[in-house]
Amino acid sequence: MSEVYRLLEPGPVVLLATVRAGRPNVMPMSWHLMMEFTPPLVGCVVGNGNYSFASLKQSRECVINIPAVELVKTVVACGNTSGGNVDKFKKFRLTPVAAKLVKAPLIQECYASLECKVVDATLVTKYNFFILEVVRAWIDPTQKRPRTIHHQGEGEFMLPGRIIRLPSPKTSLGGN
Amino acid sequence: MSEVYRLLEPGPVVLLATVRAGRPNVMPMSWHLMMEFTPPLVGCVVGNGNYSFASLKQSRECVINIPAVELVKTVVACGNTSGGNVDKFKKFRLTPVAAKLVKAPLIQECYASLECKVVDATLVTKYNFFILEVVRAWIDPTQKRPRTIHHQGEGEFMLPGRIIRLPSPKTSLGGN
Repeated sequence: MSEVYRLLEPGPVVLLATVRAGRPNVMPMSWHLMMEFTPPLVGCVVGNGNYSFASLKQSRECVINIPAVELVKTVVACGNTSGGNVDKFKKFRLTPVAAKLVKAPLIQECYASLECKVVDATLVTKYNFFILEVVRAWIDPTQKRPRTIHHQGEGEFMLPGRIIRLPSPKTSLGGN
Repeated sequence: MSEVYRLLEPGPVVLLATVRAGRPNVMPMSWHLMMEFTPPLVGCVVGNGNYSFASLKQSRECVINIPAVELVKTVVACGNTSGGNVDKFKKFRLTPVAAKLVKAPLIQECYASLECKVVDATLVTKYNFFILEVVRAWIDPTQKRPRTIHHQGEGEFMLPGRIIRLPSPKTSLGGN
């Protein structure tokens, strides 16, 4: 669990899965940040115009699924449709897998999935900002070197290029 | 200003500049997210063990400077030293430039700089979480195609690779 930050800190687009009235839904999300290493806390903005907003607010549970580039068209399609009138799992052939600790599903096609519970809703009304605790993390070991998707706006998505290795503190970039 | 999200949404490491007792300081930061398009709101975590924490909390002002890859060694060095006993601008040959609306400096070597004011400190005590409003944005037009730096932990930094273009909503990835 202390390695969860490595999944989210570089800023990938994620697929947020929630459940409402027994039916799973999914939306792409780029507005998230790490807030604590252990237990891993993640902050995220889910606009209150989204179908997922009420699901997250009411259930206080979700799964952050991290797609690799092979899913980029699905990610965009998920953002252009609403869970209010479309079963996106069926329409976009995503496979929901039961999570252990929350009702929202893992997405089998994603290379990592983080089961989360809402631990702080203080700023939900004012900023649509939820603070989540990651309570269980899954990685698909068969997806080698997954390439994350980084949204740049205006229909542009950046994929990872070269990796640079430099001596830096083990877990954190530092600060000061 | 409505384009500011394009700078931060892909998840780059930034250099946070603050001022304390008339002296500027700088720290690298990866724990940030966009929270609103207009006016641009940015949330960020600045650990309370950092010298910059008290500077930001007291002055309620900062500049988010975005470095390109050419500065990666400087970024790491800034994280491994403290503003409490080092003048990092001098030591690492960064050039402070006066901002228009805040006392903290722009960094000339960075390709973009966002002057910010703290607009919400509700969660500072509990999570070290500040909400900033970007009040002025600067881009260096001479830095073509700047390659951002994405921290992956364990001394690894990912650089941007290929760009994919897909039809998606103009400003936002979507959601729903």
